[in-house]
Amino acid sequence: MSSDGKSGLQLRSLFKKSGELEISLASVPTPEPGPDEVVVRVEGAPINPSDLGLLIGPADMSTAKVSGTKETPVVTAKVPEAAMKAMAARLDESMPVGNEGAGVVIRTGSSDAAKALMGKTVAVIGGAMYGQYRTLRVNECLPLPDGTTAAEGASCFVNPLTALGMTETMRREGHKALVHTAAASNLGQMLNKICIKDGIPLVNIVRSKEQADILHRIGAKYVVDSTAATFMDDLTNALVETGATIAFDAIGGGKLAGQILTCMENAANKTAKVYSRYGSSVHKQVYIYGGLDPRPVELNRAFGMAWGVGGWLLFPFLMKIGPADGAKLRARVVAELKTTFASHYTKVVSLQEALQLENIAAYGKRATGEKFLINPNKA
Amino acid sequence: MSSDGKSGLQLRSLFKKSGELEISLASVPTPEPGPDEVVVRVEGAPINPSDLGLLIGPADMSTAKVSGTKETPVVTAKVPEAAMKAMAARLDESMPVGNEGAGVVIRTGSSDAAKALMGKTVAVIGGAMYGQYRTLRVNECLPLPDGTTAAEGASCFVNPLTALGMTETMRREGHKALVHTAAASNLGQMLNKICIKDGIPLVNIVRSKEQADILHRIGAKYVVDSTAATFMDDLTNALVETGATIAFDAIGGGKLAGQILTCMENAANKTAKVYSRYGSSVHKQVYIYGGLDPRPVELNRAFGMAWGVGGWLLFPFLMKIGPADGAKLRARVVAELKTTFASHYTKVVSLQEALQLENIAAYGKRATGEKFLINPNKA
Repeated sequence: MSSDGKSGLQLRSLFKKSGELEISLASVPTPEPGPDEVVVRVEGAPINPSDLGLLIGPADMSTAKVSGTKETPVVTAKVPEAAMKAMAARLDESMPVGNEGAGVVIRTGSSDAAKALMGKTVAVIGGAMYGQYRTLRVNECLPLPDGTTAAEGASCFVNPLTALGMTETMRREGHKALVHTAAASNLGQMLNKICIKDGIPLVNIVRSKEQADILHRIGAKYVVDSTAATFMDDLTNALVETGATIAFDAIGGGKLAGQILTCMENAANKTAKVYSRYGSSVHKQVYIYGGLDPRPVELNRAFGMAWGVGGWLLFPFLMKIGPADGAKLRARVVAELKTTFASHYTKVVSLQEALQLENIAAYGKRATGEKFLINPNKA
Repeated sequence: MSSDGKSGLQLRSLFKKSGELEISLASVPTPEPGPDEVVVRVEGAPINPSDLGLLIGPADMSTAKVSGTKETPVVTAKVPEAAMKAMAARLDESMPVGNEGAGVVIRTGSSDAAKALMGKTVAVIGGAMYGQYRTLRVNECLPLPDGTTAAEGASCFVNPLTALGMTETMRREGHKALVHTAAASNLGQMLNKICIKDGIPLVNIVRSKEQADILHRIGAKYVVDSTAATFMDDLTNALVETGATIAFDAIGGGKLAGQILTCMENAANKTAKVYSRYGSSVHKQVYIYGGLDPRPVELNRAFGMAWGVGGWLLFPFLMKIGPADGAKLRARVVAELKTTFASHYTKVVSLQEALQLENIAAYGKRATGEKFLINPNKA
């Protein structure tokens, strides 16, 4: 590892044909910046749920072992045979990980735009951010306001844009209020701040009293607990009050998506004037954007015919709205980085620490409130 | 009942607060036609699956009893308590039944357009078609070509427009081939004729060898049997060959919708060049338009994030495409009424015969190939 940034460690995830996952740290040269490029010394990159799919995938981490050296540890774990089919396209290809992060520009290309970034702290969504250095195009870098640290700017994209993508999708598809599950998450708290600020009614679904308390403390008005005996009634009442007909669901498996549609249908029928044999004509939509519960989705279809359930992902959403509207969302994130879009981390780890089994166990369980930041240049 | 059509019998379905379904024949006066209206003597009205919801709904027909007279029988049956909630909006309201049908114009209003229909056989989708006479606006009547009987024209709308709605939806949502389940049904056979004529690759999913044989006989190329041990492979192969990424599903419950999405994903990945951590970026869609299997839909989400499942209904579809495009579809139905859109009936029954328990048992089971036509003026 050269301190001049000419090369550095990069985290790699590799699924082998033999049925094994290998996570390691590779020493890679830093590409020299072209005229319109810069080299960023990465100082913060969050471990988001969306990174875990690439990092760990379906590997059984209860079988994980560590070998290698202290400086370059290697983690290996078995992959269940049934899960190997879905890995076909990435087998035996060592992949860098880390969707987003932030760091300081330490070297630049010859263009004025590149030179202007020298010494600046920038946020990036470029992939391969779990590494010490990244060479990036100027237009991939989002310069952060002076006084912003890399840790503060590390989560500028995935959670903030996902939360904004939810309210944008709500508006574009003609709904006036929304429902969110796993609502006490980092993302869920952010969504509450957005909705409070923008005056959008938001129904939060949580799984415990503690999670409800977190949301009430930040000013959430509608919080219902899916473990309560009165859940269906509580949710229906909140839907009647808010008129929410779109939900974003991070849970995925089980009955929750169908329960939300059923309560939306019951709420719509409470105000219906005439009988419709196919149920309410109000379109009810649930977008599943996560998979905290790996069981199948179970829909009992007690909600008429005007309904949809589907996958939702940030990148296809950004493609759909186009670069101009995407830039508006990013500008809002930067403007409200220390308020609406502030992220909180449980722990800041080095690349080596990110490969320690107790840390993998902690961030791998995707628990509400547990969020790790990797600082690849942590001393 | 007056033979001049000034009054006639009309089938009625009534859900009582007491938890009972009552099907009866009411004698109702025929409204005098206004200037732009005509009176149609109904001579054919099919019992479609979409009529059974209104006619029988969730009533338990194993408890059905007949009372009343031979001329005006009354059928009663118990409704399970759990199902009564969904009936709230139609309780104690006696409702006429019968989405579509055909008959002869026997009296007209004073306008030239109305007079021009005198004696003509017309098809109608107006509701309340299980009755001897219907007063209708001229623009609700679709005049049939000379030499077309009411029985031939009775099913001009629901099945033909649903089948055409499927290929239209396929095109409008950017797909190039489609999948259909319960594919040997009257509707499914019609869809095969459309697809063969229009050169659209169609993957038919059936549940038996006999159903597969029916479709092969009318020229279907891709027929897969969901009860075969090789079903998933057979379906994937057909999807690779056809490139179908949209399905219309009449089954609803169980694993089928998810299996279709999984096979679509596997088919897409067979041709994928690069690994995508969220699965294929190809959007895969299943529309559920029926509920032959009342169990919950079970989706195991082994198909990435680019997917949707939703309800699909003819009337919202027609609203969406607007009257001009709807008229084009209707014109095609009339032009191909004796070929592509020919319907076949197991049995033609009078209103009284439609209330006989053995007939209710036969049409109530919605079996492939069983289709009843009510002729309210059957001698």
